[in-house]
Amino acid sequence: MAILVVGSVAIDSIKTPFGEREEALGGSATYFSTAASFFNKVEIIATVGEDFPAKYIKLFEKRGIGTEGLHVVKGGKTFRWKGSYGQDLNTAHTIYTHLNVFQDFKPEIPRDLRNTEFVFLANIDPVLQYSVLKQMKKPKLVACDSMNYWIENKKADFEKLMDHIDILLLNETEARMFTGESNLMKAARLIVAMGPKAVVIKKGEHGVIYFSKDSYFVTPAYLLESLYDPTGAGDTFAGGMIGYLSKAGKITETAIRNSIVYGSILASFAVEDFSVNKLLEISMADIKARFDHFKSITRF
Amino acid sequence: MAILVVGSVAIDSIKTPFGEREEALGGSATYFSTAASFFNKVEIIATVGEDFPAKYIKLFEKRGIGTEGLHVVKGGKTFRWKGSYGQDLNTAHTIYTHLNVFQDFKPEIPRDLRNTEFVFLANIDPVLQYSVLKQMKKPKLVACDSMNYWIENKKADFEKLMDHIDILLLNETEARMFTGESNLMKAARLIVAMGPKAVVIKKGEHGVIYFSKDSYFVTPAYLLESLYDPTGAGDTFAGGMIGYLSKAGKITETAIRNSIVYGSILASFAVEDFSVNKLLEISMADIKARFDHFKSITRF
Repeated sequence: MAILVVGSVAIDSIKTPFGEREEALGGSATYFSTAASFFNKVEIIATVGEDFPAKYIKLFEKRGIGTEGLHVVKGGKTFRWKGSYGQDLNTAHTIYTHLNVFQDFKPEIPRDLRNTEFVFLANIDPVLQYSVLKQMKKPKLVACDSMNYWIENKKADFEKLMDHIDILLLNETEARMFTGESNLMKAARLIVAMGPKAVVIKKGEHGVIYFSKDSYFVTPAYLLESLYDPTGAGDTFAGGMIGYLSKAGKITETAIRNSIVYGSILASFAVEDFSVNKLLEISMADIKARFDHFKSITRF
Repeated sequence: MAILVVGSVAIDSIKTPFGEREEALGGSATYFSTAASFFNKVEIIATVGEDFPAKYIKLFEKRGIGTEGLHVVKGGKTFRWKGSYGQDLNTAHTIYTHLNVFQDFKPEIPRDLRNTEFVFLANIDPVLQYSVLKQMKKPKLVACDSMNYWIENKKADFEKLMDHIDILLLNETEARMFTGESNLMKAARLIVAMGPKAVVIKKGEHGVIYFSKDSYFVTPAYLLESLYDPTGAGDTFAGGMIGYLSKAGKITETAIRNSIVYGSILASFAVEDFSVNKLLEISMADIKARFDHFKSITRF
């Protein structure tokens, strides 16, 4: 009951300059929980259709990812997304989005999971994110992601969340859009003034800025020579970060900085293959080795 | 005789969203030498017209910047550039470039400066950069900058330099253009295979990648809330880096990493005001304090 994630479990079809995959396992809750499962037990709150392959449920369970809250809709079809990336791997071009059962997703937290200590609200309608928080009993830490669509179209609902979350995770475009401020340091300051204890601004290949009322931390990304599929990098980052924090016990500044670097390291593995394939191949020793290598190439 | 820089000394008129300056001191050799002068003596090799204000010559001399190689062309006019920046401070829009005396610049190194140990070839025609190297007597370290124009139009001459320089400094666009490789790690590897001992890829607000045959180093930029004028940031970076290295004595991996961070710190000051104004205001104690602060916000 250490970590609970509310988000999507999906079937993705993806094309990048480096290859193509049809009907692969995807979704924010999938990437998050696969990354977090290196550190702790995770419970998924999501919805899938009856067509969702049983092998994926087994895969979750094998990794200690609980599926009690993974609702299977009888006769329903799983959320499907198809997208492609050109040479600029920062921009996904959506070919189709079939929300299917995800359209009627109303997250219900099973009673025995309501006292989970670490909660990650992946990118869904902020109204649903808020409804999840109402169901939880005093979590130790709530982290929240979002996207430009909600920030533009449900800004008031999104803002209502601010007083109830500890860490807001946004990419740099979202942080600028949310605050109307192009300077990221000023944007971070404005966000923290709205309620969250801290904000994490994800800059993709350029690293991460962490900003709280008391301190800030800046780190580059792990430099990669081969990047195959950026899908899910942000959720994988969050999974590594929250996974590490949930394991660290006390949430100190040192723990937070390490958690951000672990998040970056997990994300660096995720983008080296399609879907969560690379994350399924690696061990905690691989993660630790890359963490140590990152330390060695950034130390001065 | 510690450092010698060959480049431009110019009069810049600049407009940014934060203000405007007419006829301010500019040019690559100006920014470089002002930054490097915090660490060591610098000699400028450049050309100006008779209209070049005497106060600027005095300013150089006051900072221990030698002007023996600053050629004043009788009846000539100094190189003038006018440019503006919009909200995107990464892109300068040139309003005019009057090369004036700079058009006939043929760098001649005074005899007593030819054994200077540290040489910086700022962004000028690679044919002239090469002619400078032919005049020098076995410098300890040669660093070289360039720009897209030379890489596109004088590629063979630029490539001819590669075997004779220790550190090549390029921004990320130039590194990609020079190698035809969009991945910066691969681009860096290709550049080092062409001859230079190391390459420094400057990513502006996203930091720096240093890559040599034996190691690499990645660092973010110092996060700023107020950025007034990015002109000269790259040359200021180089001045801080080469200045620190010339003072460090032995060129170890540790010295190189520290020099890169000092370069970033100097550049972070330079962009906080127009021209070299901020650099003239600060002391070595300010630089050291920001270096220490940077260490504290990047450590994990």
